[in-house]
Amino acid sequence: MSDERPDPGTVRPGGRTAKVREAVLRAAGDALAEDGFDRLDLAEIARRAGVGKTTVYRRWGTVPGLVADLLTEMAEESVSRTETGSLLGDLTAQARLVQSTLSDSRQGPLFKALITAAACDPQTAEALQRFYRIRTEEWAPCVTAAIDRGEVPEGTDPTEVVRAVSAPLYYRLLIAGDPIDQPMADRTAKAAATAARGGAFTR
Amino acid sequence: MSDERPDPGTVRPGGRTAKVREAVLRAAGDALAEDGFDRLDLAEIARRAGVGKTTVYRRWGTVPGLVADLLTEMAEESVSRTETGSLLGDLTAQARLVQSTLSDSRQGPLFKALITAAACDPQTAEALQRFYRIRTEEWAPCVTAAIDRGEVPEGTDPTEVVRAVSAPLYYRLLIAGDPIDQPMADRTAKAAATAARGGAFTR
Repeated sequence: MSDERPDPGTVRPGGRTAKVREAVLRAAGDALAEDGFDRLDLAEIARRAGVGKTTVYRRWGTVPGLVADLLTEMAEESVSRTETGSLLGDLTAQARLVQSTLSDSRQGPLFKALITAAACDPQTAEALQRFYRIRTEEWAPCVTAAIDRGEVPEGTDPTEVVRAVSAPLYYRLLIAGDPIDQPMADRTAKAAATAARGGAFTR
Repeated sequence: MSDERPDPGTVRPGGRTAKVREAVLRAAGDALAEDGFDRLDLAEIARRAGVGKTTVYRRWGTVPGLVADLLTEMAEESVSRTETGSLLGDLTAQARLVQSTLSDSRQGPLFKALITAAACDPQTAEALQRFYRIRTEEWAPCVTAAIDRGEVPEGTDPTEVVRAVSAPLYYRLLIAGDPIDQPMADRTAKAAATAARGGAFTR
């Protein structure tokens, strides 16, 4: 692939530029999942992607720039929320989605590497926070619907509930190191739903 | 200070060896808190501690070896649990201890660096998991006492309850990036206590 950079507005979706981006972001994700963030190198990613080094340097500039774009793509492509008609059902679906992601042999190490990279670099931290804001906003309406149905008290904070579902799963990934299995995910969802119904997340 | 290594059993507590260890671990903690784990260097830590480089290399060998010893010391010196007579009181004390640690200007970045280091190195991961096992075992009797008082159902898993208190605070530190304040800590404790009383953590 060539190193030319198209003018803004001339890029066809699905065209060559989109293909280059897809290949480079795929390679960046693979490299992060396999080697962790501390050995990430733009030239190596270009080689993996079969793309000219100059293209990668020109378009993404730095490792944090590339990782930020990877997080943007991950947010664009991430799964929509499930609506089951009950808070416990919805939060269980959310917990199982996080569980299957974090226990996946590529996605688990990838998320660990992204969170680690964010701890070491402010631009990556900002991109990671944006990614999780988007994901939390995607699931927050499950809590709003539960308020509307009278399942949980008025004033329940949707962000806090959605985070309470995810946090114990990330705690296992990053700190405790023990398996992130479905019974554990289901318990986490049940705990968040029970606490929300009991009024623990009202402001 | 000299580079000699005493035979096992000849070290007086509070003696020169203990002082060297204290100085080196303090310097390692400072370096981690200030620069993060990715720039950790044994020679620089020796310089900061005012100790011979050879002493540091001989005694700790590698950065992961030194970080593991730092985590051992942190576990030895960590604060005992508070007993208030109620589960909510005890979990609030736990949440506030974690909150004050993670929002501290030295301890917050130090924990972030330790968790980041663990994500990149298996020896550090093992030492970190051991540290959190010790801390969780310290607080678990709060839950056992609540079972004995009939506050929460038989079969409630103490480890899961203690982790449910900490996890949302670590989620903020490592992922969301927003402030870890006392009202947030209190909500987290209330959520865990409410969920535990509602039977969400029974096996």
